[in-house]
Amino acid sequence: MVRTARGRPRNPEVENRIATAALAIYGDHGWAGFNFEAVARAADVSRDSLYRRWKDRRALLVDAIARVEPAPTSVDGLSLRDTLLRTALSSLERYLAPGGNALLRLYVEAPQDPELLELFHREVITPAVRRTRQLVRDAVDAGSLPAEANPTAIIDSVFGAVLMHVLATPAELRPKMVEQAEQYVTDVVDMTLRGAYYRDASPGGTGR
Amino acid sequence: MVRTARGRPRNPEVENRIATAALAIYGDHGWAGFNFEAVARAADVSRDSLYRRWKDRRALLVDAIARVEPAPTSVDGLSLRDTLLRTALSSLERYLAPGGNALLRLYVEAPQDPELLELFHREVITPAVRRTRQLVRDAVDAGSLPAEANPTAIIDSVFGAVLMHVLATPAELRPKMVEQAEQYVTDVVDMTLRGAYYRDASPGGTGR
Repeated sequence: MVRTARGRPRNPEVENRIATAALAIYGDHGWAGFNFEAVARAADVSRDSLYRRWKDRRALLVDAIARVEPAPTSVDGLSLRDTLLRTALSSLERYLAPGGNALLRLYVEAPQDPELLELFHREVITPAVRRTRQLVRDAVDAGSLPAEANPTAIIDSVFGAVLMHVLATPAELRPKMVEQAEQYVTDVVDMTLRGAYYRDASPGGTGR
Repeated sequence: MVRTARGRPRNPEVENRIATAALAIYGDHGWAGFNFEAVARAADVSRDSLYRRWKDRRALLVDAIARVEPAPTSVDGLSLRDTLLRTALSSLERYLAPGGNALLRLYVEAPQDPELLELFHREVITPAVRRTRQLVRDAVDAGSLPAEANPTAIIDSVFGAVLMHVLATPAELRPKMVEQAEQYVTDVVDMTLRGAYYRDASPGGTGR
């Protein structure tokens, strides 16, 4: 939860509706078309109810993104593999959902607004990277992965593959992609974890 | 080369200058700020010299992207591993170069203009995916990878990891990222190829 959210008593139903509207508007129209008025209209709330909760549109947008960002969190009893499978699949589904363009667009546009960029990294990216790295370290401690495993490479490969898969699939193949999403995500996670696991078996890699 | 380029006699130096300017302008300002006048000014050429070569701004933008898109092509004597290493590293460098935002922005914005989307897929994405898949199939034929290797998963993992790495690295860590880029890319490519290679050794994956 973004800390710039104001002290307004929580009404999760309203806040989720506003966040959903914010992602849809930002995803479709970008930073130039993103403002409290458009979001209030789409969410069917007053502009005041936005001002009471968020100090500006940066705080609103980053809070909305943070709500849907499926950073892996350790679930008791769930292996690294199952956690990655579940999180990668929800990441893929989110890119395809209404407003799914918003995260990608924010990556593109945030560098042009340093304050937005800082907030985005602080509230979304950095916590997600930290939580995911910790998951990999836990798997190392549990002996599921060798100590030399590169957490950044593992995380980037799994979540980057999902992103690239969505980006590179033309519109007419999307239904097929959705149908095969679970198999695809399983292939990617297992390939990545095997590659991390067998690090010592073939240090120089294969495919030479 | 995009086929909509017109019959103007080639002057590669001028065309590269225009393409570089087009990527910089599109990367910074997006589709809304992308037009022949701005590109002509930035490239220090007349608008006529753009109209003679490209029928519209869609053709110009997609042609400019196609020129810098480092789709892996098989180089005689180079293994799949070395080809992927070289191409992934050049992909990372391109994201960081001036105009490096352009490809990512086009992924975000093209879906809102069906004609642009179709051209982008036809001239850039589909050929790149096909060429890269062929490289993986060649490695399978040569016995470097098992027949069950999933070319899409391999390609998405390597190039998606590079993209995610750039996106998730905050500005202040970029110099360090650049310094360690070769090691990072090597880790990712080797992990991915080992994961594909050892498919049969541990079909269900590790990290359970």
